[in-house]
Amino acid sequence: MNTKDKIIRTSIAMFNLNGERAVTTNHIAASLGISPGNLYYHFKNKEDIIRHIFSLYSEHLNTHFKPLSLNENALEQLTTYLDSLFDLMWRYHFFYDNLTDILARDSELKQDYIEFQKKLFTQVQAVVLALRDASVIDINDSDAKELAHMLKMTVSFWTPYVKARRMTGVLEQQDIYNGIVKVLMLFKPYCTALSKEKINGLQAHYQTLADETLPSIA
Amino acid sequence: MNTKDKIIRTSIAMFNLNGERAVTTNHIAASLGISPGNLYYHFKNKEDIIRHIFSLYSEHLNTHFKPLSLNENALEQLTTYLDSLFDLMWRYHFFYDNLTDILARDSELKQDYIEFQKKLFTQVQAVVLALRDASVIDINDSDAKELAHMLKMTVSFWTPYVKARRMTGVLEQQDIYNGIVKVLMLFKPYCTALSKEKINGLQAHYQTLADETLPSIA
Repeated sequence: MNTKDKIIRTSIAMFNLNGERAVTTNHIAASLGISPGNLYYHFKNKEDIIRHIFSLYSEHLNTHFKPLSLNENALEQLTTYLDSLFDLMWRYHFFYDNLTDILARDSELKQDYIEFQKKLFTQVQAVVLALRDASVIDINDSDAKELAHMLKMTVSFWTPYVKARRMTGVLEQQDIYNGIVKVLMLFKPYCTALSKEKINGLQAHYQTLADETLPSIA
Repeated sequence: MNTKDKIIRTSIAMFNLNGERAVTTNHIAASLGISPGNLYYHFKNKEDIIRHIFSLYSEHLNTHFKPLSLNENALEQLTTYLDSLFDLMWRYHFFYDNLTDILARDSELKQDYIEFQKKLFTQVQAVVLALRDASVIDINDSDAKELAHMLKMTVSFWTPYVKARRMTGVLEQQDIYNGIVKVLMLFKPYCTALSKEKINGLQAHYQTLADETLPSIA
């Protein structure tokens, strides 16, 4: 791994563990055993690092999330989609801890974020409509739009919601499964008779994973 | 109004407008035309001010939110409850912009916040169960618990969700009405035949308020 990638990887880990606000470029350089000058050779400042991380995050989302194809496995496709989405939220959870702050400091990043969110909304709405077309859910157009917003909000703010209610503030892998339970919960009331049992099964599956005591990972 | 109350009122306004991170005790003193020494006479530091604001916020919630009484007006009572809850979120929206940061800096505040959230969860869950007892909704115990979490999360993180998708980052009064639409949306799938029409009517009412162009308020 080259120095630039190492800086990014270390920054993500430190931001997730200690919060973006508490971590300076000097901390990052010290943790890597490189000089601040070496870090500045690769990145102008912390904002530059955050912008780079955001582009990785968007890229990951663009590469991993293909539209659902219309067939009887729509629900299984949804599960894969959810797993990947929460994996993404896990990797970059620091970003949602002080999203307003981070975006207020960098108008270029904010512009990119807004564009990205619009694209993401269209994508999430398409998933909802594909599930309707596959008769997994029964929902009208206006509620489909509201549901897409609720899904997006839940995936974004589930991690700060969890952290705020835990004294250590440390996120654990089970928290992500618990978040998936919440997302399935949003779909459940719209399930058709055909899919109700399957969604209940999925919810029970993730609830079991959420209840297991796994070692904490920062 | 005494100086102590003026400091609190100005701090809330400045935190909401510029974000807590960007505002120092010197900014607050300057805005009030008092010396930093005068401010420090009343509050030890910024954390002390934030702690004081949080106690006002908890107090407001404790005073204004009485349990729903079981009668045919359960839905109207819910509306009053929602209006007050979003009014509260409007007044103190800065708090949810970087909640993780604020709590990580002050373990005493975090302890209070966690206790408060537990109490709030019990309260929200009681509202859900009272609506069930009044036959407004039909929901099982486990989903009632999940719904209470979703309601609490939506009310808390609706404002940062809105701000992150707007270039100016300024919250407007209509955004709050839009948040109420989202909260009603969470109830809707559980509505009984008796209440479905009423909830749809409420949703339309708040949607109209949300669509009106009101002057922006910071």
